[in-house]
Amino acid sequence: MTDDEKFMQKAYQEALKSLEEGGIPIGSVLVVNGQIVAQGHNKRVQKASAILHAEMDCLENAGRLLAKDYTKATLYSTLSPCPMCSGAIVFYKIPRVVIGENENFVCGEDYLKANGIELINLDNLECKKMMKDFIEKNPSLWNEDIGV
Amino acid sequence: MTDDEKFMQKAYQEALKSLEEGGIPIGSVLVVNGQIVAQGHNKRVQKASAILHAEMDCLENAGRLLAKDYTKATLYSTLSPCPMCSGAIVFYKIPRVVIGENENFVCGEDYLKANGIELINLDNLECKKMMKDFIEKNPSLWNEDIGV
Repeated sequence: MTDDEKFMQKAYQEALKSLEEGGIPIGSVLVVNGQIVAQGHNKRVQKASAILHAEMDCLENAGRLLAKDYTKATLYSTLSPCPMCSGAIVFYKIPRVVIGENENFVCGEDYLKANGIELINLDNLECKKMMKDFIEKNPSLWNEDIGV
Repeated sequence: MTDDEKFMQKAYQEALKSLEEGGIPIGSVLVVNGQIVAQGHNKRVQKASAILHAEMDCLENAGRLLAKDYTKATLYSTLSPCPMCSGAIVFYKIPRVVIGENENFVCGEDYLKANGIELINLDNLECKKMMKDFIEKNPSLWNEDIGV
């Protein structure tokens, strides 16, 4: 298993934690210099939150990092990031993003690429199945989370 | 005083509240159908937060709105929004943004305009002075907040 696959497993576990809490199963991990500095998951349901997508929750859990920390980071997410999360990635100049999949949602990748951010899609079957199953069972909640 | 100026005064009061708390003086107000639905301010210092810029805090305080609510909204901010906040505005399809000023910071306006969002700059002297004074007195904190 590569390091990217290993960290994606951690993000997947975060997504499962959200599912167990009754929330939307998207997880994220922030890695700096090969070490996990924060993990997070979507908290729309758990905290009635409009901004705590998995990636945002993860960045929040990392606390107040310095600009140079972000520039050495990789952000992992089980699902392709939306424009809000992509904006945060661009803002903090995180140079590398690894996603589990982009079949169930894709909206912010062009913005990342236009800003020179490396985007790697692991095309992970578990991530795809988890998200597909959730969306099929919870279409209105999912639409709310993606602003539709 | 126009409605935009009136709502900007509310955003300015939010910024002052942050300053009184020892935080970064940026405030925001979300208005839907002419009514304030949420207010917020930067909470980097107060909550050791990497994501609670004024606009994000305001969107969070608004709670779980429906997509159609955002499409009737105007977001006010005492300062031009960064790429993270601009990403949130684009994501939720907020059609109109009114800012107090963009002399002390500007970074996300092109992204807003490219997505067809109306951007109005009130070029407010009080907003400009408050931010300029803060940045002069707190350069390292300010650089942290803008990811520099």
